[in-house]
Amino acid sequence: MIQCPRGTRDFLPDELEKRRSYEAVLRGVAERFGFREIETPIFENAELFILRSGPGVMKELYAFKDKGDRDLALRPEMTAPVVRAFVDGMSNDPKPIKLFYFGQCFRYERPQSGRYREFFQFGAEIIGSATPETDAEAIAMAASMIKALGLKDYKLRIGHIGVLRQRIKNIGVPTDRTAEILQKLDKKLYDEARPLLKDMGVKDEDADELFALTETVGGTEVLDKVPGEAGDYLKKVVAYLAAMGVTDVEIDLGVVRGLDYYTGMVFEVEAPALGAEKQICGGGSYTLSELFGGEKVFSTGFAIGFDRILLAMEKEGIVYTPKNPDVYVVAAADSVRPDSFRIASQLREAGMIADVDIMGRKLGKALRYAAAIRARWAVIIGPEEIARGKVVLRNMDSGAQDEVVLADLAASIRA
Amino acid sequence: MIQCPRGTRDFLPDELEKRRSYEAVLRGVAERFGFREIETPIFENAELFILRSGPGVMKELYAFKDKGDRDLALRPEMTAPVVRAFVDGMSNDPKPIKLFYFGQCFRYERPQSGRYREFFQFGAEIIGSATPETDAEAIAMAASMIKALGLKDYKLRIGHIGVLRQRIKNIGVPTDRTAEILQKLDKKLYDEARPLLKDMGVKDEDADELFALTETVGGTEVLDKVPGEAGDYLKKVVAYLAAMGVTDVEIDLGVVRGLDYYTGMVFEVEAPALGAEKQICGGGSYTLSELFGGEKVFSTGFAIGFDRILLAMEKEGIVYTPKNPDVYVVAAADSVRPDSFRIASQLREAGMIADVDIMGRKLGKALRYAAAIRARWAVIIGPEEIARGKVVLRNMDSGAQDEVVLADLAASIRA
Repeated sequence: MIQCPRGTRDFLPDELEKRRSYEAVLRGVAERFGFREIETPIFENAELFILRSGPGVMKELYAFKDKGDRDLALRPEMTAPVVRAFVDGMSNDPKPIKLFYFGQCFRYERPQSGRYREFFQFGAEIIGSATPETDAEAIAMAASMIKALGLKDYKLRIGHIGVLRQRIKNIGVPTDRTAEILQKLDKKLYDEARPLLKDMGVKDEDADELFALTETVGGTEVLDKVPGEAGDYLKKVVAYLAAMGVTDVEIDLGVVRGLDYYTGMVFEVEAPALGAEKQICGGGSYTLSELFGGEKVFSTGFAIGFDRILLAMEKEGIVYTPKNPDVYVVAAADSVRPDSFRIASQLREAGMIADVDIMGRKLGKALRYAAAIRARWAVIIGPEEIARGKVVLRNMDSGAQDEVVLADLAASIRA
Repeated sequence: MIQCPRGTRDFLPDELEKRRSYEAVLRGVAERFGFREIETPIFENAELFILRSGPGVMKELYAFKDKGDRDLALRPEMTAPVVRAFVDGMSNDPKPIKLFYFGQCFRYERPQSGRYREFFQFGAEIIGSATPETDAEAIAMAASMIKALGLKDYKLRIGHIGVLRQRIKNIGVPTDRTAEILQKLDKKLYDEARPLLKDMGVKDEDADELFALTETVGGTEVLDKVPGEAGDYLKKVVAYLAAMGVTDVEIDLGVVRGLDYYTGMVFEVEAPALGAEKQICGGGSYTLSELFGGEKVFSTGFAIGFDRILLAMEKEGIVYTPKNPDVYVVAAADSVRPDSFRIASQLREAGMIADVDIMGRKLGKALRYAAAIRARWAVIIGPEEIARGKVVLRNMDSGAQDEVVLADLAASIRA
């Protein structure tokens, strides 16, 4: 028996219907915010991801050569492809450009709870604008999406990577070692950061102050402790968020997105119920297009881990109500079998989900199948009834049956 | 500048919105027919496709080894993955199982008009039923989909591969060379088939009769010329199709699906306007599950080439009407900028597509942007007006402006 490859999944109908319904919720929010969808290829030239993340990314890429010896890779995320598509085909469009995307991404890593090799991301990018309003718009949309899905227990934390970068620069860390320090700060590994900083000639008291800075956490009152322009900037972001009804935010200068291209505001949303893999959304403002051969363009974006947010919803006990077939049509005799198809066809044209017996089953067995697929109604076509222009309509919940004039069938089902 | 890999495409918002809208039409038809969606991984164990199509398929696969030295391949089609998923996870579900899918497939071939290396297929499978009703249901759904998209110029041809297989067997072609002959017949390459048949010891007159059989083409009256049980079977299929209002069918015993696993009814839909690459849909009844380690289960399915059917619609001049933003909100002064976000937020909550100026633009420039994104209305927030609980509503088509009480704004836009 062949199975799907390790770390990938089949989504069978019940599960997929639920996922599509939540996907539609996210799409709806993005559209109402004036974002428009973009779709890029499943694979890209591997160079794209190396330019974005450094050569270290190769070890977690599904990389391969095509038959023309080109180095390709399945996309591990969608910001780089979207920015590439912007550089290639949209760079002259009026700014800002508000884009969203949804699709599979691939990472070669050990599968574990909430981590798959094929996983799904829903994300958005605002390209060509660098204002507090831009950042607020992105954060507000992420927050609206999470609320629209019904998730209750989450934490939205906003920081500013510029503050840490500035401090790191001021205390004498060489530019090419900034990323190394930021990675340690991201994971709060102060004990590992300290010897590194010492090695770079950073004074102990400066290291302590840097660590203290990443521990600047709290409500919006903490904004007064954020040094320099970043504090004023974040105050504006928070004010616009408040105007949009988003007030449940935490300020946290310890929010460090892993990648070099983030420049200013950064934010994360976590669902504490998920434990170690609790981050369900991450984003910030960045510049990336110049790496791909375009002009430098400021952008703000975020991505939601779709699999993970669904896991968080499950842990909160959010239940999906399936949309079941409206009706199952079955012929009670061979002579009226074509009528069953004619009537199913009419119900479909009337917009209903109408299934029909295609196996020539006896009535009892057909009705058991109708129950198994959770049809709300069964329409039973009998030779005598159909001769009188009627059919039998059976309520699959109660088992109650009634003769209905064919012309009234759709209306009776809707009632 | 990095571009998307050869044979792949970026779908920018205008194009993608159109594609999503047509995708939704197909989804709607499938759901009304009682089919439910299934999603399988983008890549599979390469063996799956070799089992389905033979080792020759490797040359057109995007195949690669993962870091665990497993042979994987991007899916070139979705029937094999769906049947695998059925064997793995649904084989005990009540039959029939009616599934549909939509997604990317990948073939390493020379890109040309209507052929891409990354292309999109919409398809359906009915698993676990082998009746004329089953085949009629599948064909009727394909026909409904094409009609629902608005395509006018297409040809639906129904054949029966069993007839050709039986004749080929009867005239003495060895079983292991049947596929070779079918391939020639599929392309009507009689001159190439003749020496092959001669070589196998087939008499000239038998070869001629075989060729004549593949030229059995016409309206449903041709059904009387279809030999054996296949004729009776196809008559039933056609009768059920007629009950569902599908009467524009042609019988064509020359319809030969390329693959070994087809067993009975086969059908194709072509759009003549597309020239050489005119096939937009193909399907038939088959058994495949036993190849993947499951029990032998009869199925009927089809796939629609989504890119190609869109090309055919384009050639017919079918025009898509874009759904534009309902409203663009802009602040006429810095002091009321937070109000613009508050109001945009309210309009979004009322279900509207509401964009808002995030760049702090002057009014004239903001309105030019609103026109560029084709917003139907602009809402202008002025300090004086907002103090009186009012905003200015501008019709972006006519340029007409009116003061509107804030509480009536959503209603005024909807009117």
